[in-house]
Amino acid sequence: MNKHGTKPDKIDHLEPKKRQGLIVVITGNGKGKTTSALGMALRACGHGMKVCIIQFMKGDIYAGEWDGIKQMSCEIELIATGKGFCGIQGNPYPWAEHRANAQDAIGLAREKIAAGRSDLLILDEINNALKLKLVDLEQLLDLLQNRPPMLHLVLTGRDAHQQVIELADTVSEVREIKHAYRREIEPQPGIDY
Amino acid sequence: MNKHGTKPDKIDHLEPKKRQGLIVVITGNGKGKTTSALGMALRACGHGMKVCIIQFMKGDIYAGEWDGIKQMSCEIELIATGKGFCGIQGNPYPWAEHRANAQDAIGLAREKIAAGRSDLLILDEINNALKLKLVDLEQLLDLLQNRPPMLHLVLTGRDAHQQVIELADTVSEVREIKHAYRREIEPQPGIDY
Repeated sequence: MNKHGTKPDKIDHLEPKKRQGLIVVITGNGKGKTTSALGMALRACGHGMKVCIIQFMKGDIYAGEWDGIKQMSCEIELIATGKGFCGIQGNPYPWAEHRANAQDAIGLAREKIAAGRSDLLILDEINNALKLKLVDLEQLLDLLQNRPPMLHLVLTGRDAHQQVIELADTVSEVREIKHAYRREIEPQPGIDY
Repeated sequence: MNKHGTKPDKIDHLEPKKRQGLIVVITGNGKGKTTSALGMALRACGHGMKVCIIQFMKGDIYAGEWDGIKQMSCEIELIATGKGFCGIQGNPYPWAEHRANAQDAIGLAREKIAAGRSDLLILDEINNALKLKLVDLEQLLDLLQNRPPMLHLVLTGRDAHQQVIELADTVSEVREIKHAYRREIEPQPGIDY
């Protein structure tokens, strides 16, 4: 298999007159929020950009992206934090423990921003974390308002807060039209995790 | 920077009792369709799966994913076809030329399926291609209905056809809530291309 694939012979490179960091919010109840953020990471790596991904509430269920990013030769870092989804059936951890984990994660996000090494910072599931009061609105707004102007920030998760949406440049709502799990099809590797 | 990032000490691996190929459709007018497909590619690579991406109507504008996937050590192939977006302002190619290109691309998809080497086949922007009659509904339905049962197929692009949605297992509509370009912010590398 030709791993590199096929590209057109002549390629035009777009170059914006003004480069600037964007705040992108991917919210909604459908499949495709985390994967969209991961796709932006892949795309950014292709441009030689440095990427940091902090996963809130990820827990200890294996996700393919953990090994997927290891294969990449660019500067990409993925930090999975949390104790799984707070409040869903079967999750044994008390709210205070989820909160402590999310507070560590937001602290880490602040450190990564202060270090200034990332071109793209993805805060995966942070919208949920905010909705569940694991992080505070003020903490997230402070982070958004005081970010370096060239840093791209991508925020994923259901139930994005209205004030976060207002600050964002690009916001998509991923709506579920249908989902395999409603027909009792179990999550499939490579697609769902 | 710790490229590999941090994962929990103890990891639980999900394993579905029944593995099966899924048809996933990512449609809608918002940002995050192609990137979501690319994220699934990254995730699948982490699971050691083989991935093929065929981009319909991509044209000759450089996209970060072309170099992003080159960095990956898994079996992943990306084939960019087309002459850009058919019918949008500034695109100089006649419909017949777009049609010929899309017909080559759907033929290629059939070949890839027949070769049986892929675990995940992404047909990027094929929903648009169908809407614009560059491929025929019968061609796409035939491909979906006769795919190998373990192959995952991901179809992206606006205006997914109702009959395609009916055949799919998981369908998301990515709705634009806001987009930077409406405030005259140019496409930014790593995020928009």
